[in-house]
Amino acid sequence: MGSMEQRIRDSFGKQDFTKTIGAELVSVAPGSVEVRLAVRSGLLQQHGFVHAGVVSAIADTAAGYAAMSLLSEGTEVLTAEFKINLLSPARGEQLVARSRVIRSGKQLTVSACDVFAVSGGEEKCVATLLGTIAHR
Amino acid sequence: MGSMEQRIRDSFGKQDFTKTIGAELVSVAPGSVEVRLAVRSGLLQQHGFVHAGVVSAIADTAAGYAAMSLLSEGTEVLTAEFKINLLSPARGEQLVARSRVIRSGKQLTVSACDVFAVSGGEEKCVATLLGTIAHR
Amino acid sequence: MGSMEQRIRDSFGKQDFTKTIGAELVSVAPGSVEVRLAVRSGLLQQHGFVHAGVVSAIADTAAGYAAMSLLSEGTEVLTAEFKINLLSPARGEQLVARSRVIRSGKQLTVSACDVFAVSGGEEKCVATLLGTIAHR
Amino acid sequence: MGSMEQRIRDSFGKQDFTKTIGAELVSVAPGSVEVRLAVRSGLLQQHGFVHAGVVSAIADTAAGYAAMSLLSEGTEVLTAEFKINLLSPARGEQLVARSRVIRSGKQLTVSACDVFAVSGGEEKCVATLLGTIAHR
Repeated sequence: MGSMEQRIRDSFGKQDFTKTIGAELVSVAPGSVEVRLAVRSGLLQQHGFVHAGVVSAIADTAAGYAAMSLLSEGTEVLTAEFKINLLSPARGEQLVARSRVIRSGKQLTVSACDVFAVSGGEEKCVATLLGTIAHR
Repeated sequence: MGSMEQRIRDSFGKQDFTKTIGAELVSVAPGSVEVRLAVRSGLLQQHGFVHAGVVSAIADTAAGYAAMSLLSEGTEVLTAEFKINLLSPARGEQLVARSRVIRSGKQLTVSACDVFAVSGGEEKCVATLLGTIAHR
Repeated sequence: MGSMEQRIRDSFGKQDFTKTIGAELVSVAPGSVEVRLAVRSGLLQQHGFVHAGVVSAIADTAAGYAAMSLLSEGTEVLTAEFKINLLSPARGEQLVARSRVIRSGKQLTVSACDVFAVSGGEEKCVATLLGTIAHR
Repeated sequence: MGSMEQRIRDSFGKQDFTKTIGAELVSVAPGSVEVRLAVRSGLLQQHGFVHAGVVSAIADTAAGYAAMSLLSEGTEVLTAEFKINLLSPARGEQLVARSRVIRSGKQLTVSACDVFAVSGGEEKCVATLLGTIAHR
């Protein structure tokens, strides 16, 4: 047994890198996923902002699971490619990645994801990703 | 004082995320940088391959420092955007990211980076990045 | 003298390639531009759909003028890079490109553009672009 | 009957947009294609350079046929997405697009293409594309 959400939560739980960075799967809906991360030392680049690799990791993860949320049970997803624009320095208390499926095709899904930095209760979009996810 | 290589090594040393993942700056030449990473648990995604965020992190880091290697002292670099194609599962003993500057302009540098998985002494290209780095 | 819209219309009028393909500047608002194109022979690829180069041309044009719409008079825009996902074959009577600025910075603007195919009064999103526009 | 080159030349011949812009298929080799274009009025943007849509069109065309050159007879190619960096204004007498396959997979090919402007016998790289081509 297992709902779509459960399958995605199980898969997320197998990612040890998301544990390393402390990313959490907040919510899963058909075609949309939210991943959250507490900003802390160990995740930063030379100017003290969150490293682009961390921002990319949560955005890609959210984009991939959004794709998976619309596919039948047993279908695995693998990111073929993504492009990310880093709009502003990623700093604050938390980062939130919110993804949405743009097109779910037979072999490929196109997903987008915005990443917001949360600071004092305010959100600012700091990155936007557009990616292609292969099914298998 | 400080050579170009020293400035880049100093900047790399301030990145605590690259320490978290264990990335090392192997070599620096004008327009070209090599970053290396030992594959280990804590860096993986749900299928046991190195997470796209880690692959992106070392590729983006190598691409950014290649840009910096051609700029005058005191100029900082900030990735504006990158696109990465994940060509094959990233597995093996090590990952090596080798970058090259494609165009060094006044405000922007365009860099590329290939990431190779090393397994039993053999290298396989597992990802390729094309990015735009802003100067300031 | 000249309003923002007039400056953009003047610039658009100097593009002889958009005349070659028959693209029209439909509307201009701050941060958002619409470009329209009648699908006709001379614009197609080998399967009879509109060529990716034509789809890219109107999407890039709309994205660039959206950037320009938020900049002060006399600032020119030049696309540094874009990524486009071709979601579905571009066929129908018309293509409509609708752009929006995602982030307007000091040196760079990030714009997105969706391209819709119009057929029998119905619109379908056939492509989505995410690009970086340099100011000068 | 028909060699790989003949199949690609036949497909290229069915693209009426490449005729509109005057693009020529210069050479075809396994994993590599060259497309050439004479710069002329009708192809320009507002600053008098070749329009990004035209540069993209020849780069995407060369990238797609490079993918096709490594696939079995009857397999069609469709660009899923590409990213292009416009490195310098595209001006001169001719543009030459030279593509290469980076990875030829089961469902997807990753191709790159550089576009050179030729002026007085000298070549300058004015754009570089990295794209993903779906097979069907």
